[in-house]
Formats: sequence, structure tokens, C-alpha cells
Amino acid sequence: MKNVLLKIEYDGSGFSGWQRQPGRRTVQGEIERVLSILCAQEIHIDGTGRTDAGVHALGQCASFSGEFGIPVDRIAAAANALLAENRMVGGDIRIISAEEMEPGFHARHSACGKTYIYRIRNSEIMPVFMRKYVYHVRKKLDTDAMISAAFHLEGTMDFSTFMTDAAEYTGSTVKTVHSARIAADGDDIVFRITGSGFLYNMVRIMTGTLVDIGIGRMSAGEMPEIVQAHDRRRAGHTAPPQGLYMEKVYFSEEELKKGAEACRASDIF
Amino acid sequence: MKNVLLKIEYDGSGFSGWQRQPGRRTVQGEIERVLSILCAQEIHIDGTGRTDAGVHALGQCASFSGEFGIPVDRIAAAANALLAENRMVGGDIRIISAEEMEPGFHARHSACGKTYIYRIRNSEIMPVFMRKYVYHVRKKLDTDAMISAAFHLEGTMDFSTFMTDAAEYTGSTVKTVHSARIAADGDDIVFRITGSGFLYNMVRIMTGTLVDIGIGRMSAGEMPEIVQAHDRRRAGHTAPPQGLYMEKVYFSEEELKKGAEACRASDIF
Repeated sequence: MKNVLLKIEYDGSGFSGWQRQPGRRTVQGEIERVLSILCAQEIHIDGTGRTDAGVHALGQCASFSGEFGIPVDRIAAAANALLAENRMVGGDIRIISAEEMEPGFHARHSACGKTYIYRIRNSEIMPVFMRKYVYHVRKKLDTDAMISAAFHLEGTMDFSTFMTDAAEYTGSTVKTVHSARIAADGDDIVFRITGSGFLYNMVRIMTGTLVDIGIGRMSAGEMPEIVQAHDRRRAGHTAPPQGLYMEKVYFSEEELKKGAEACRASDIF
Repeated sequence: MKNVLLKIEYDGSGFSGWQRQPGRRTVQGEIERVLSILCAQEIHIDGTGRTDAGVHALGQCASFSGEFGIPVDRIAAAANALLAENRMVGGDIRIISAEEMEPGFHARHSACGKTYIYRIRNSEIMPVFMRKYVYHVRKKLDTDAMISAAFHLEGTMDFSTFMTDAAEYTGSTVKTVHSARIAADGDDIVFRITGSGFLYNMVRIMTGTLVDIGIGRMSAGEMPEIVQAHDRRRAGHTAPPQGLYMEKVYFSEEELKKGAEACRASDIF
């Protein structure tokens, strides 16, 4: 029995999200389809996180196990060939790596943290080429206010202010955010957040709140109060999916610590 | 009677090219559809150049005329609102500007030159996000060879070596290329060419030939011979559409001269 960890990059714009759904093109569905061909058996994969329609990944992870003939070090190249639209263009999913893990490993249960980035294009004009990859905000953002507001999102707290569908969720709303920083990256403003766990829409609602602070609808000083309200209505709008990227998954506390440090180091404007 | 010049940016990946075709989504078709709504009459536009499926534009031009109520300075914003997929994302066509011109002006007949750029990603790994926007070449390119070969493409010559479907074309195959340069641009190698006119697939066949020289299939010294052969079979492969961008259209010799100068100035590696 082989147990395999996949690292995956995808352009979410052509998918109805991560999760397999009958009759819809999803990331999980596409990967399972090609792995089932390569492994000559039905394969089910478990992703570290489910991303919504339009959300991208630079380093999503997923695991699966089975008895199959294909050597693990051939899986990535073979899967990418099957995922490609044609030989010249490639696919909108790329398996970055496939690695054999010890038997108990699981992409979701073994993960201890993740980094997300959210990309904002703050400009009058939006090139058509970027429309599925950044959140376009026309009004000039006060990045100083956003930077200082983001600090209040760090720590171990009840983050239920930043959650959609709170009523349906039965897990704990207390999570640890190791770092939450605003930085400049080329033409974009990037919100990068590393944490132990994330509630549904947490990064998008945090980003929407930071944008509302950046355009002056709320003030940076209100952020502690917003967090402590534990009330979705106190937060700002939910930023749209296309600016969000799952960047990295951590499988040890040491990796997570390094990821959070890198996130803090990116805090240069 | 108003005569209007449109400057247009588009992401060609979602279109069956520029030219209107029944039952297919084309750039011309989409723009005519929204202009016909705004002008409350059937509008036909003439583009400066027809781009193939998958080819992009940063500054395509088109003209149209008619008696209509909408002020010309409102056309761009109104058309962009109708072209948008939704309020958050925008469309894959953006009207950069709409300008009223003198009666005889015509986007194709009045044009005296154009600049195209062709974008090559020369790397082992290709991010999924770039697959529709660059030509991925894995093998390390010898850019010095490409730079020296490109110089041989400048001048007033019969360029029929770099033309697809030569038998069907009845115009002159003599064109003036004012500048043809290879430059580095971020992670990409960019071929930028400014000329008075272009034959069908000329830039893509030139690029394919330069790539073949860059990977050592042909030598830079063969380029003069290849040009003088007037034989498509002597040139290299046709580079795929997704790396090609119509960058600029010139409506005066002075503008064209400036464009060629800018193209030469970009020649820094």
C-alpha cells in the first residue's frame, strides 16, 4: 500500500472549486480522473483545504493511497501530461510533486498550518489579463492604515467575526494566526496570512475588512473591537475569490514557524 | 455622421480570434454587439488587423461610423460596463479609448504601421497562470544568437519566407520592418517588431525561427539565407498564438518612427 502526498498548483478560474461534484469541473474531480487512469483503479484524494470557485493555489496539498504499479516519482509528469489541454499550452492544474509518505500520513489531518495570500490591484485601470487573478480596487488605499489594522489579526483568538455561515459550523472558532501582513508586490498590494487553521471565508472577509479600512469606510483603530465582536456583521465585505491563493501547507511546527517568519519578513512597503 | 476610433485591449484566450463569425465568440462580434446596443443601431467595426484565436492585444484599433446619440466620450465606459462578466471581474475586452476622428479616417486604411510583441517563457517550470499568455520553451535559449539573428529581419524586403498560405495571398510580400529586437522582460524573453505591414503569421513564424536558432536547430548566420529563400520551408516552426500581442498601431509616419525607436531602445539584455 503506497501513501502519496501531492503538491498542486492551479488556476482556479476554470473550476467550480476544489471539491468533487457530479457534472461540474472541479480540481479534485480532474485530479482523481487522471490518477484513476494512471493507477488503473478508482482513486480518491483528500485535499488539505477546499477552495471555492475562482480561488487559486500555488501549493495546495492532497494525499491518496492504493496498491498501484506506477512508480511514485513518475506520477507528477504523467499526470501533468494528462491534465494538459494540449502539448503547447499545458493544463490549468499542475502537479508540482508527488512524494511517498509513511502509512499514517494524511494531507488534512497531518497539516498543522497554511499560508494564504490575497492579491489586490489598486489602480484606476485594470488590464484585462489580470481580471481573474487579482481583486481590483479603484479607490486609492491607505496602506499604512491597512498595515496597522492587520497586526490586530495576529494571535490566538475566536475569529468568528470573519466567518460565513457561522450557524452551520460545529468546530472551534478559536484559531492561531501566526502572522498577518500587508506588503507591496510589484503592482499589487498583498495580504499574506499564516495560521494554524482558517474558518470558512476567513481570509476573504479579513481582506474585505482591510480594504474597507484602506478606503476609509472603517478605521484601523476599530479592528480590535471588530475582532472581539464575534459578529460577522461588524466586519467588512467579503473580498471576491479571484484574489485568493492557497500558498503553502505546513506539516510540522518547525515548517509552520519558518513560514510565519517568511510572512513577517515580507512586510516591507 | 460620427466617425470613431477605438483603442482596444483584449485577452485572446476566450475568443475564436478577431473576426466576426456566426455562432462563435469573437472580439469583433462582442464589440459590435455592445456598440449596437449603445448606439441603438447595427454597428460594424473595422479592425486594423485580424488576430487569430488565442492572440492578445494591448492596443488593437478599430473604427466605425454612424448617426447615434451617445456622446463619443461616454462610449468606452459604457461599452466596458456591458462587456464586463460581472461588476467585480470586468471583461476580457477593454475599450481603452474612443475618439472622434475626421470623416475619412479608417482604422485599417489610415494605419501606417504596427508593433507586435511575442513573449517567450524560457524555464523548466511553467506556472499554470501563464499558460495562455506566453510560449513555454523548456530548452535553454541562446539569446545572443537570437539577438544577432533578429537584426537580419530589419529592412525593406520580400518576407514571403515568413508567411502561411502564400498561394492564396495576392498582395505584395515586400514589407518594411523598422525594428526587430529581442529583449529580456522580467522572466520572459520578448521579441518586439515594428513594421509597416505584416504577412499572415509573419511574427509567429519569425519567432519560431528565432526559437529554433536559440535552441541550436539552426544558426544565426543562416538567417539572411532563410529570408532570401522566399520559401516557408526554410523558416522554423510557427510559434503558438498565446505568446503574441498586438501592441500598438501607428497612424502617422512620425508615430511609427517613435515606435520603432522605442522598440530599438528595448534591446537590452
